[in-house]
Amino acid sequence: MSSRDGFSWTESQGLKAGVPCIGAINPPTNLSDKNTKFDVIVVGAGYCGLTAARDAAVAGLKVLLIEARDRIGGRSWSSNIEGYPYEMGGTWVYWGQPNVWREISRYGMQDELEISYDFSRGVNKYLLVTPEGTQKFTHEEEDQLMQSGLEKLVNIDGQAGREALVFPHSANLGPTAAKYDRMSIADRLAEIQNDLTPNERICLEAFVLLCSGGTLETTSFYEFLHWWALSGYTYQGCIEYLVKYKFKGGQSSFSIRFFKEALASGNLTYSFSTPVASVKSGPAGVEVTARSGQKFRGLKMISAMPLNILNDVHFDPPLMPGKKAAADIGHVNQCTKVHAEVSDRDLRSMTSISYPHNKLSYGFGDGTTPAGNTHIVAFGGQHNHFHPEEDIEKTKAAFQGFAPMDIKRLVFHNWSKDEFAKGAWFFSRPGLLTDHLGDMRATQGNIIFACSDWALGWRSFIDGAIEEGTRAAMVVRSSLSERCHL
Amino acid sequence: MSSRDGFSWTESQGLKAGVPCIGAINPPTNLSDKNTKFDVIVVGAGYCGLTAARDAAVAGLKVLLIEARDRIGGRSWSSNIEGYPYEMGGTWVYWGQPNVWREISRYGMQDELEISYDFSRGVNKYLLVTPEGTQKFTHEEEDQLMQSGLEKLVNIDGQAGREALVFPHSANLGPTAAKYDRMSIADRLAEIQNDLTPNERICLEAFVLLCSGGTLETTSFYEFLHWWALSGYTYQGCIEYLVKYKFKGGQSSFSIRFFKEALASGNLTYSFSTPVASVKSGPAGVEVTARSGQKFRGLKMISAMPLNILNDVHFDPPLMPGKKAAADIGHVNQCTKVHAEVSDRDLRSMTSISYPHNKLSYGFGDGTTPAGNTHIVAFGGQHNHFHPEEDIEKTKAAFQGFAPMDIKRLVFHNWSKDEFAKGAWFFSRPGLLTDHLGDMRATQGNIIFACSDWALGWRSFIDGAIEEGTRAAMVVRSSLSERCHL
Repeated sequence: MSSRDGFSWTESQGLKAGVPCIGAINPPTNLSDKNTKFDVIVVGAGYCGLTAARDAAVAGLKVLLIEARDRIGGRSWSSNIEGYPYEMGGTWVYWGQPNVWREISRYGMQDELEISYDFSRGVNKYLLVTPEGTQKFTHEEEDQLMQSGLEKLVNIDGQAGREALVFPHSANLGPTAAKYDRMSIADRLAEIQNDLTPNERICLEAFVLLCSGGTLETTSFYEFLHWWALSGYTYQGCIEYLVKYKFKGGQSSFSIRFFKEALASGNLTYSFSTPVASVKSGPAGVEVTARSGQKFRGLKMISAMPLNILNDVHFDPPLMPGKKAAADIGHVNQCTKVHAEVSDRDLRSMTSISYPHNKLSYGFGDGTTPAGNTHIVAFGGQHNHFHPEEDIEKTKAAFQGFAPMDIKRLVFHNWSKDEFAKGAWFFSRPGLLTDHLGDMRATQGNIIFACSDWALGWRSFIDGAIEEGTRAAMVVRSSLSERCHL
Repeated sequence: MSSRDGFSWTESQGLKAGVPCIGAINPPTNLSDKNTKFDVIVVGAGYCGLTAARDAAVAGLKVLLIEARDRIGGRSWSSNIEGYPYEMGGTWVYWGQPNVWREISRYGMQDELEISYDFSRGVNKYLLVTPEGTQKFTHEEEDQLMQSGLEKLVNIDGQAGREALVFPHSANLGPTAAKYDRMSIADRLAEIQNDLTPNERICLEAFVLLCSGGTLETTSFYEFLHWWALSGYTYQGCIEYLVKYKFKGGQSSFSIRFFKEALASGNLTYSFSTPVASVKSGPAGVEVTARSGQKFRGLKMISAMPLNILNDVHFDPPLMPGKKAAADIGHVNQCTKVHAEVSDRDLRSMTSISYPHNKLSYGFGDGTTPAGNTHIVAFGGQHNHFHPEEDIEKTKAAFQGFAPMDIKRLVFHNWSKDEFAKGAWFFSRPGLLTDHLGDMRATQGNIIFACSDWALGWRSFIDGAIEEGTRAAMVVRSSLSERCHL
């Protein structure tokens, strides 16, 4: 199976659009004339929509799942190429991420994980590349640099944020959160600039932008603190929560389990490659119209679409003002994520920052391919944005900006040009959460808006998507069942 | 509502058996003549049984939940006395515990938590009481002592266990785990005894026994390492995962949500105060006979009973040899947990170890009652075992073994004399996990054995109970539905 999404490049084949994906669904629909009215229509088959559809279907509701793409997974999907999975979006999971781990445990996939980085092989090196040149460090020195910089950044309370963000899952942001949410990372860096060494500053900026995909000015300081708190308030925790473990078989080997379970309930109807044009909500329920003109009716709808595309669907009645305002503002993450398969085996244990001049600012060894080559994953963002498919030589040069390497293959998805995402994972600009988190989460008539973009816990993560899909299914079940007093 | 379980004591009322509990279920059954054959019979209404019953009922299966007690919650339940919750068993939760937090999030209870300890009030003090006398420290000094001791204990790989226990959720223990599981804590202490200061040794022993409720000789070193790994491989993580957050309304305010959701499905039949005498499993299903002689029939059964009481039910055919062997060995936790309401407000921020001579070895301020008194929670174990209801003066003296205090009230449950638990949370003796974890988890005919005692993740915890209940419901759904290929 292949998806229309994604790109690959090799010397012999050149640039190709579309990559293999076990999450591509064929046939694209199981709709029949018998199925015309549903209890709930779920729009979006990322982890949020999949979870909502699965939970509702398993609980006996008749569910229609509509997805614009030809595949499940939304912003988290993998492509297996020559027996090796490349993660096009969301990648890492951890047992401290509650919703993700509950599902991994539930599907018995605890032994299907592997460790991303591997500092035991090749040359143990951390390359810090700036316009002035390249400095070489060990990973132990990297940890010291990152830890000391991060601890200065987050130390707003003398306890690395433990006091200030003691309940990071609360739905009520409160005055402390608001204070830091009004601040950008640039604002915070200005406060601590005299405490930072030049190297700490480079490391900090590159790390925060790796998280946000925005710029220092458009990145909410609170949102970064929130990631930090969820990661256990330590740098070591960040490594473990954010980049340590991934699926041996790729993310799509996980998301397909949700889809298959939903299907097995006998209550799931689905339609892929079906972008939604408009949604009409009235007392009797919801009517969803696809771009093709096809209409679907349900008692409830779960909108599992990202914030950045909400304005592309016509809602009648229109989105409530706060929700519309949030969609107008949007999130800031325009991350560029590119994989390279390179013949340099020593790079397996490389980590590197190349910043601020390089198109890709963060790169590291992320695996060994069946051919014995090294897999390097690299990230850029809004601060120095580019479209990797537009000029492959420029993309290859961005990898050389970390260290010399012999590139055999490139694999990536362009999230910025993706009309069904318009960006990568959610990251808040200053003030958006304080002003509109409640608005984004609000139910409007028969439409429940669910998305990782406004999760309370691991917002932006697969975990937050499952959190939100779980919530949405609960709301729908509760509202459709008079007996059900949850 | 009150339960027969638990004890309370005040000067004016003396010792009373039975305490208030919002998890006591009345009427005790909703059985009717119409309900005689079930898809699945769940035996045990702790978090594991509740989760299994709920998941199965929500998914459309006809469920009978049988419980020996008059209440839900098993080894985790709370008693609200004069507007204040006392936790009789499992207490603390954390957002890094996946199954627990998924449910807290799902039920929207994120804002119903509070912090247990509070070092901001009263006198910031840590009392280390030994037969030689009392040493006073600050909490910062306590942290240093505990951290340095623990890091010596767990440092089996130069990385505080991160290398040796890199996949702590794996179902396959492997040779490294087996090596440390064959060792007791006493064995490990012998290895590092020359590296420990006398105070570090006292702190370590008391902390490990607080975890295990056993003795140094009967406590598996691996099982302690497993807790450590799950807590993020740090002492700070142990504090946050193990004792930081609890429910404002008590554990029973959480467990009742599971029960009510199951009930709302319309698929739950239940019978409390119904101890099971025997279970017969054949090709057609399972017949469960209560001590009263009442018989129930189901296609499948989920046994959600603790390891230490499995031998008290007659199974036909008998338990498979490995399972029987595990039940014969049993787990070692004979924790004594006692709450005191004391008038000494300064003790709110006390932590104390009184060891090895005192009947209660660990105590700390755990809250402030509506009357403005301090709530002290204290723990003892097998190493110096006692039954707190047998001699209240002795129990009060055990509290005075931490510091002088004016005791107004005592509240506790005697887990060792509890015929439906025969101990507190699971803790493994050396070798039990290596030899029998797979046996304990094995399904036998139509009976799925599910219990926190053999969870893969937070074994012994509420989280592990929910993990196991989730697994059991999945197994039953899958085996009862031809369509269901999970």
